[in-house]
Amino acid sequence: MKGFFQLISSAEFYRLFSRFSALPGENIADVKGLGRVVVDNSLTADEPLPPFSRSTMDGFAVRARDTFGCSESEPALLQIIGEIAMGCPGTEFTLGPGQAVHIWTGGELPVKGDSVVMVEYTHLLDEQTVEIFRPVAPGENVIRAGEDFAKGADILPEKRMLRPQDLGVLAGIGITRLQVHKRPKVGIISTGDELVPPNQPLAPGKIRDINSTTLAALVTEAGGIARSYGIIEDNLKKMLAVCEQALAENDMLLLSGGSSVGRRDFTLQVLEGLPGSELLAHGVAVRPGKPTLLAARDNKSIFGLPGHVASAMVVFYLFVRPLLRLYSGLPATHGLSEIQVTCGEQIPSSIGREEFVRVRLEKTAGHALPVATPVYGKSGLIRPLVEADGLLVIGRDVEGLDKYDTARVLLFP
Amino acid sequence: MKGFFQLISSAEFYRLFSRFSALPGENIADVKGLGRVVVDNSLTADEPLPPFSRSTMDGFAVRARDTFGCSESEPALLQIIGEIAMGCPGTEFTLGPGQAVHIWTGGELPVKGDSVVMVEYTHLLDEQTVEIFRPVAPGENVIRAGEDFAKGADILPEKRMLRPQDLGVLAGIGITRLQVHKRPKVGIISTGDELVPPNQPLAPGKIRDINSTTLAALVTEAGGIARSYGIIEDNLKKMLAVCEQALAENDMLLLSGGSSVGRRDFTLQVLEGLPGSELLAHGVAVRPGKPTLLAARDNKSIFGLPGHVASAMVVFYLFVRPLLRLYSGLPATHGLSEIQVTCGEQIPSSIGREEFVRVRLEKTAGHALPVATPVYGKSGLIRPLVEADGLLVIGRDVEGLDKYDTARVLLFP
Repeated sequence: MKGFFQLISSAEFYRLFSRFSALPGENIADVKGLGRVVVDNSLTADEPLPPFSRSTMDGFAVRARDTFGCSESEPALLQIIGEIAMGCPGTEFTLGPGQAVHIWTGGELPVKGDSVVMVEYTHLLDEQTVEIFRPVAPGENVIRAGEDFAKGADILPEKRMLRPQDLGVLAGIGITRLQVHKRPKVGIISTGDELVPPNQPLAPGKIRDINSTTLAALVTEAGGIARSYGIIEDNLKKMLAVCEQALAENDMLLLSGGSSVGRRDFTLQVLEGLPGSELLAHGVAVRPGKPTLLAARDNKSIFGLPGHVASAMVVFYLFVRPLLRLYSGLPATHGLSEIQVTCGEQIPSSIGREEFVRVRLEKTAGHALPVATPVYGKSGLIRPLVEADGLLVIGRDVEGLDKYDTARVLLFP
Repeated sequence: MKGFFQLISSAEFYRLFSRFSALPGENIADVKGLGRVVVDNSLTADEPLPPFSRSTMDGFAVRARDTFGCSESEPALLQIIGEIAMGCPGTEFTLGPGQAVHIWTGGELPVKGDSVVMVEYTHLLDEQTVEIFRPVAPGENVIRAGEDFAKGADILPEKRMLRPQDLGVLAGIGITRLQVHKRPKVGIISTGDELVPPNQPLAPGKIRDINSTTLAALVTEAGGIARSYGIIEDNLKKMLAVCEQALAENDMLLLSGGSSVGRRDFTLQVLEGLPGSELLAHGVAVRPGKPTLLAARDNKSIFGLPGHVASAMVVFYLFVRPLLRLYSGLPATHGLSEIQVTCGEQIPSSIGREEFVRVRLEKTAGHALPVATPVYGKSGLIRPLVEADGLLVIGRDVEGLDKYDTARVLLFP
């Protein structure tokens, strides 16, 4: 089997994720909840939001029927029985026929009040009498109690990553602690006798470890907690020991090394040598990214990533990120924004594998869509990644795209 | 002036930002650098990346001229003078005419070696002799020293928010500490006698403070550091004292209260009452968001936000976020992804102000672009925000959009 891959499609790769499940929950303060995912979509409103019927305007709370038929020339005359100061209970007042109460935006309606006349359509005759120039319908300029969320209502859609407005709703309903899925912990292990850490001097023949830093930032960006286990020499026994420890301490391992056939075989030996682990994928029909390995042990996952950082990054966005999102309680998708673009030049591709081309995007006069230009470079280079804005997708059965074709780009976050 | 606004356009509002500047720098470890912005674009490569010419394939390092004209039927015969083990200096070998060295992906080329023949196009005759079936050009299957970044080259474009691949480059060049702009600190102050904190019981006429939680999360999402100063009662002297303290401790203040005319006047009094502050904007011609106030004191900024959380959030994305990005060293833009959509229904608008309509996006058969459907709701409601994916933009001089028109949507992050 050495050196040869059994390529599966990306769709087949995603299906492998069905054996993994979201991580268990932990209890946190909701001010820490941005980007987290609530367990079991378990949140319902214990109280209605808003808690009472509120005015959305400054003006007069009235019984709508008392304003029917009034106009500029024939105003309705209502008796003012008081003012509802902000934060005071409107229910201290009960409107009888022909009565009105001064109310401010956000104030609670009085008993029997069903609508609010904007101050612009009123005129004070004296302290006790107001003229109304326009009729209102019942409910006009009012948000009813529970109009946002009735008591007992579900608050959020399933598998929702919490956004600022979601946290706002929870605050409004008085929910200040949440049960959310744990953030996945990810161990990162670099292999290669040629690697030195970024903070150490270079000896001849050595290069600095780029992948550990890049992968740790990708994990952080995806909501995970990255921990680096450093650079492990090409020694199977030592490597297996480090992997065992890292597997015990994390939910996922990312193994990253060189691209030589020997290094790939080494990674395969590691995945096959971990007791209880099962090799799920040995190669995937995407470019770049072919030499991707995936193994599982219980609910934990181990990726063998391509050695070139550019390839490793594409594989991260396509496959690692969806699994991290699954662990976090989200759908197992990459979650990157997708946009339509116009191809700036002809882009050849190969039948039989999906291609992900690094592109730069520019707004160009005469094109409604952004224009995507490939940032080519040998796969060992990292500069094209620094220049790229995202990945242009070319389907498995497409021979390439022509200049000015419309295409799809996954934006880097 | 009470109750009346002097509306300016959003373009005029953005021009006000020219008086503000990016925050000073601080020194951090680059593993903490995700999302930060390097001061002065000061990073250049102290050493070339890669540090030496590397093979991108497993095979044999050769002098290209020794392979010219070879073929399957007439292979070139080269003498193998050794193997460059991973991480060992390739310069220990010097290729004479007709000589080759075993090399692995990522290995350093030998002296006089200028290209690599893939192992697939070779055959070992014996331990000292290899047949080459395909010629290579000089530089083929090689990344030259400095091909990514030459010594002294600028590494990153200006005003770049650091991404995983950028941090990877820095690691590769041995830069492990960075001078980045400080993260802006933002004080959040809610006003209103009707408000109670989310964790306290509701009394009649009271509602929970939604805005503080929502704004804090929006600040965090934008890379700032949020600090809440709680709910301050409607008392000018007390409010001014809290604002003074918060201004001393932060780069920006966000004042948020109700939407009544009295509350707006109160916020205006606060902004005008802070010694040394200058009122820059008193209303902006966007909907929602009209009652937005902006004041400055030195390089610090104070926003008076609309009371309704839905409006406050739109103003945050349009105006607060660009200023936070400016403080962080980025361009003063919202930085939200923009996509083209198809309108799912007719959307009316008003001439004279830009409109930002909350929309839900769906992929629909028969439409290449996502279909945007407005999520209408009274402006005091928060549920439409929970259901929305972004803001559809309707220009100032447009009366509305027809069903199936193409439009622009700013995606929530």
